[in-house]
Formats: sequence, C-alpha cells, structure tokens
Amino acid sequence: MIAKKMIQFVEGNSVTRAMFEEGKRRAQIYGAQNVYDFSLGNPSVEPPKAVRESMIEILQEVSQNKVHGYMNNAGHEEVRETVAKSLNQKFETNFTEQNILMTVGAAGGLNVILKAILDPGDEVIAFAPYFGEYNNYVANFDGVMVAVSPHIPDFQPNLDEFEEKLTNKTKAVIINTPNNPTGVVYSEETIKSLAAILEKKQKEFGTAIYLIADEPYRELAYDGVEVPYLTKYYANTIVGYSYSKSLSLPGERIGYLVIPNEADDYENLWNAAVIANRILGFVNAPSLQQLAVAKCLEESTDVSVYDTNRKLLYHKLQDLGFECAKPEGAFYMWVKAMEPDDKAFADKAKDYNLLLVPGSAFMCPGYVRIAYCVDKGMLERSFAAFEKLARAYQK
Amino acid sequence: MIAKKMIQFVEGNSVTRAMFEEGKRRAQIYGAQNVYDFSLGNPSVEPPKAVRESMIEILQEVSQNKVHGYMNNAGHEEVRETVAKSLNQKFETNFTEQNILMTVGAAGGLNVILKAILDPGDEVIAFAPYFGEYNNYVANFDGVMVAVSPHIPDFQPNLDEFEEKLTNKTKAVIINTPNNPTGVVYSEETIKSLAAILEKKQKEFGTAIYLIADEPYRELAYDGVEVPYLTKYYANTIVGYSYSKSLSLPGERIGYLVIPNEADDYENLWNAAVIANRILGFVNAPSLQQLAVAKCLEESTDVSVYDTNRKLLYHKLQDLGFECAKPEGAFYMWVKAMEPDDKAFADKAKDYNLLLVPGSAFMCPGYVRIAYCVDKGMLERSFAAFEKLARAYQK
Repeated sequence: MIAKKMIQFVEGNSVTRAMFEEGKRRAQIYGAQNVYDFSLGNPSVEPPKAVRESMIEILQEVSQNKVHGYMNNAGHEEVRETVAKSLNQKFETNFTEQNILMTVGAAGGLNVILKAILDPGDEVIAFAPYFGEYNNYVANFDGVMVAVSPHIPDFQPNLDEFEEKLTNKTKAVIINTPNNPTGVVYSEETIKSLAAILEKKQKEFGTAIYLIADEPYRELAYDGVEVPYLTKYYANTIVGYSYSKSLSLPGERIGYLVIPNEADDYENLWNAAVIANRILGFVNAPSLQQLAVAKCLEESTDVSVYDTNRKLLYHKLQDLGFECAKPEGAFYMWVKAMEPDDKAFADKAKDYNLLLVPGSAFMCPGYVRIAYCVDKGMLERSFAAFEKLARAYQK
Repeated sequence: MIAKKMIQFVEGNSVTRAMFEEGKRRAQIYGAQNVYDFSLGNPSVEPPKAVRESMIEILQEVSQNKVHGYMNNAGHEEVRETVAKSLNQKFETNFTEQNILMTVGAAGGLNVILKAILDPGDEVIAFAPYFGEYNNYVANFDGVMVAVSPHIPDFQPNLDEFEEKLTNKTKAVIINTPNNPTGVVYSEETIKSLAAILEKKQKEFGTAIYLIADEPYRELAYDGVEVPYLTKYYANTIVGYSYSKSLSLPGERIGYLVIPNEADDYENLWNAAVIANRILGFVNAPSLQQLAVAKCLEESTDVSVYDTNRKLLYHKLQDLGFECAKPEGAFYMWVKAMEPDDKAFADKAKDYNLLLVPGSAFMCPGYVRIAYCVDKGMLERSFAAFEKLARAYQK
C-alpha cells in the first residue's frame, strides 16, 4: 500500500535495524562497556552552558506569544539579523537578514534549497565519498545525482573528473568541508580551482550552477587548519549551516541557509526558498531554538575533546598498520578496509565488538567510517579490539 | 533560475505580500488600533503556564545530551508512550509508542504520511472549502488533488459527490474537523456515513483508501459539541495532530501522527513514515518540544477566550444581516460575501480597515474567512467597521 519509491527504503531499513539489534545483542552478551559503537555522528560533548541558560532566560523574560508563536516563514527577523552580523564579523561578508533563512537543521535547509531550484532531471554533483542522504534529498525533487569518483588516497575533490561531469543540466554542486565521512578539509587553493571551473562552465553553458556548501562541521577543524568561507570565492554559493555539531544540538533541528545577494536571480531564489520552507511542511525553524542560538553565536563546543580522541585514534590506527585519510576536521576517521569488501570488513570488525559504517553507505566501497565523537574511556578500551582486527588480517 | 514549479508560488506570494504591506500602510495612516486584522490563525491566548514550567524543568534537570541529542527518527520512545496512553484514556483506543510518530507540527506530519503513501498520479480527496496548503502538500509528491464541492449552507461534507469522486486511484481522503476555514464540526452520524462509503469503495476497488484526519483544532469545540475520534470508525485512519492551537505553540513545530495497527499494511506504513520523516529533512521533531508536550498532555488552552469572541462576533454578524456557517469549533467564522466576487468583497472590507481572507484561498469562492483568535477589545472596536461594510451593500 505504500509508495513504490519507499519500498527500497523500507527494505534497506531492516538491514540497518538488524545491525542495531546485533549491537544490542552483543551489549547483552559482552556488557555495554565492551561494545565499541563508532557508527553514529551524535556529539559526545555537552552543549555549552550558555545554551541552557539562554533558553531559560528567554522562557522567563520574553512574552510567551513571541517565544512560541508564528513568525515570518524565514524566521525571526532579529535572529536573522544577528546571525548575518556575526557572519560578517567572522568572514568579512555583507549579509543582512534578507540573506539568512532559518531552517530545521541543515537537512531541512538542503531540502528547501533543492526544492527551490530543481526541475525534474536536473543534475546535482557531489564528490564521493559523501553523506548518503544527499541521494534522497535530490530524489525528493526528481533530480539526478551525479557522483565524482573519490580521489585516493587524499580524498580531496577530483577536479578533473568534476570538470568532465559538469553539463548544461548541472543545477547544483554539493560540497561538504570539513567532510563527512573522511574528516578531510578542502584547502583554499582547491576551492579557488573549483570556483574557476564552475565560472568557466557557467559561461560555456550560459547557465547558473549553484554551489551548495553543507557546513555542519565548519567549527570542527584541528591543527589550526583554515576552512575557507565559500561565498567569497564563488558568487552562486548557498551555505547550509547547522548548530547540531557546533553547539551539540542535533535533536533540536536548528540551522540556516545563506542566500547571498550576489547569487543569480537572488530575489526569486530567496522567495522560492522561503515558500519552499513553508510548503514542504517545515513552516519555520522551531522558534525557541532560533531565539536561543542567536544568543550563543560566539559560543562553541569543546573541540579539544574531539581533538584528543582524533590524535589518540589516528596514532593507534597508524601503529596498527591501518591506512587513514589525514583527519583535519569533523569527528570522523576514514580508514581503508583490510579486504576489498568493506561490508565484509565491517562484519569482521563486529566479531571484535567494533561497530563501524561501511564506505558503501557513502558511495565509496573499500573503506569504513569511524565516528570518534565518543567517550574517551570507551575509545581507549577499543584499542585492543582494533589490534585484534588488524592481526586477523596480518596472519 | 528557480524551479518551474516554484514560479507560480513566487508570483502568488507577491500578491500576499502586497496585502500585508497594505495592512501596514493602513496601520500607519489610521493607527494600528484602528486596523482589524482577522487574516491569521495565530492563537491570541498564551500557552498554559505548565509549558514554560515544563521546559525550564527539563532544561534544569534532564541531562543535556538527552534533551538536545539525536533520538529515534520517530521521536523519544517515552514521549510516544505517554502520548499513546493519554489518547487511550481519552478515546478508549489501544495505541502504543509504535503508533505515535512525533512530527514537525501537523504540516510536517501530513507531508510525512503523503510521502509514505503517494505514487505519482494517485488521487487525494478533500472537501471544499479546505486549507489551501493541502494542494501544495499533495503536489509535493505528484499526487492529484480532487476537491468535493462545498455543501451550502451547512458546509457539512457533501457525501453524494464524495462517493462519485472516489476511484481506484484514490489513495487518501483528508478531513479536517473542527474545520478551517468554516468552524464547522462533523457529527458522529456524518463520520459513520463517510466511513461506510469508504469501506464500500475499498471493497469495490480492492484498494486501501487512507482517511487522513487533520486535527489541530480538536480541542477547540464549543457548546459541548462532540468531536468523534476517527480511528474508532474506520480502520485505515491516520491522525495528524498539532499542539499549535491546543497549547498555543505554532512557532515550535510540534505534533504527531497516529498510525494504528489496524491500518492496512501497518508495518510497511509505519516504517515508510519514519523514513519519510528522516529523508524529507525533518529528521525528528524538535527534542525539547517533544519532552515538554509530554508533560502537558492534560493541559489545554483557555478555550473560553475564543468562545467569548465567537459568540460576540456571531451575534453581531447575524444582527448585521451576514450569513454565517454555524461556528462550533476552531477559531474561524465563515461568512458569505455580500457580492458574488469574494476578492472584491474582501477589497471592499479593506476600505473599512477589515482584513479578511477571500474564500478562493480555500477553494470556495463567494465567502470570506474571519479568524477571531484576536484581542477582544480589537474585536469589539471592529464592529462599527462591520456595520459600515454591511450598510455599503444594503444601500
């Protein structure tokens, strides 16, 4: 009775659920502390105290109809203005509230902008490996996903293949840096080259190609690495942001889109996005969360916790002979499977109570993703298991 | 550069904006207190105090990663269980947490269930007049909206025409009682007749036809009128609920879907809906709001405030010679325009600083909607304007 398009999802879902049940079964047999779940990107660091304090202050001091009532579908004006000013200060941009659309997380924002721009058959390019949900978001609007092959072993974008895959049907390109699942950050040089290719192809085809920067991990960058702000390099950039990782609020569904004045057809694009936010059923980003994040724009999560895990895990994996992409951002490590089949490798890891995600889920078989946003004690306890896993392949 | 489907929306939007700007212009000329805005369904009653208290208590006492972190895409299990138990107590149903899917308001819920069931070309029936957004929600999934003509003057569902319009392509029927825009409540007898027709047609076609009950106004019913709980009358009922009106939280985007075990293909339907919640970009209903409403299930808004307005306005309009549907629920009054063209009538009303919504917006020309969820003082000040409007047509 369900929609035909949903059948594949329901079938796929039972596989995921089986994995989840397997994790629970193992926790019962071996004890929860001896099962090492690296499968989820759920921040282990608590939100900054200012989030809770701001929410309580708003609830106590602002009129209830203002806190909980309807506002413009784009969000509270003063929240959007505050976000714009904060971006301008950090990145020397020139945004106003007319460039900031508050969204139900980055997932909501991506759906909103794709609804606004995609006609059926329009192509959207992403660089493998990438977050598998992009496929679903693009399919929601009958777009066609085009994957650029991974650039091994550094997992920077494969720009030669990218240039070949741009066509007059390319409506958008999604990039995600710091990257899920690789932890790689794209350098300024890379961004400049990518922008130059896009400019050239826009001219060649006489089209607008929107660069959608999915940036939930912007603040999670290590070793002082710079994460360039993309609107400064390419006029047709749309930024999708989320507070899920930077303020550890993934369950609260709060983020925003940046739609710059410089984007082609700005006025229609802005209006279409605001309307899309409404008719997709989001209506507006949750009001209390909007008001709260506006008070916490200078706050950030304690990145040092993830950084400590990153260093511990990276050195350990290298010592054990694993091949990893250089992890400069986000809280993921991207590791080459020790056999060609990443699913078989993830299954083998499970024998040692290590729960990893096969790279196939990110359109890049042969690798696995380790989410190290976990308790440090658990991470350290897991090292013996990683050692056994490595040994199993070195026999 | 925007999607072709969005162009009509952007054009339509500028008309709405022009109306909004006109309202602001009039407020500047005549003073805000002399412009009578009856256009929005934004609750004028504050949320019950328990909402604020619950939110603060949760923020102070529950672990922050629990309050703000990811949970199952269907929502917090204990929240869903609490909602199920509360429904069971009120309506003698038998729901568990496996029947309750927390959603981003009713708008989110409707999109989720339509995504779960609609194949392109599937038909969805609604009874005119109805909330115009249904058209957009159904179009999001390439469904075909089929409107049943209004039953004048009582605006109960036109069941004869309904029966004729059910086909083997009908996948769903949306009903909304208490009704936006008419304020009418469907009686138990009507529901039984409607259910009997659906049962008959399901058998005739060998299909499942889901009855989607959009129920944001369930608690807003007056004069002791009963609002039947639909899952008890028809097995293939899906309920879409929202706390926007019952707890005055429209900006917080919190509601739920009820997907009963008795629904055809329950297991696939449930799984498809949970997945749809994820891939449409909602991911989950905002976490703090979920936890808060679960503590306020026995709370309700102060319906007497709307009831007072309802009686004042209804009597006044009758005295002035307006024809109104019997307003038994919600906070809308549905009034016959005093000339055939409802848009011209709404324009004329504007001359007296009365902002009303033309019935065309609800697929029912010839009428206007008055949202009386407003300050009582403003309502009373507006009566002179209504009188002038009536006189203008009685010359």
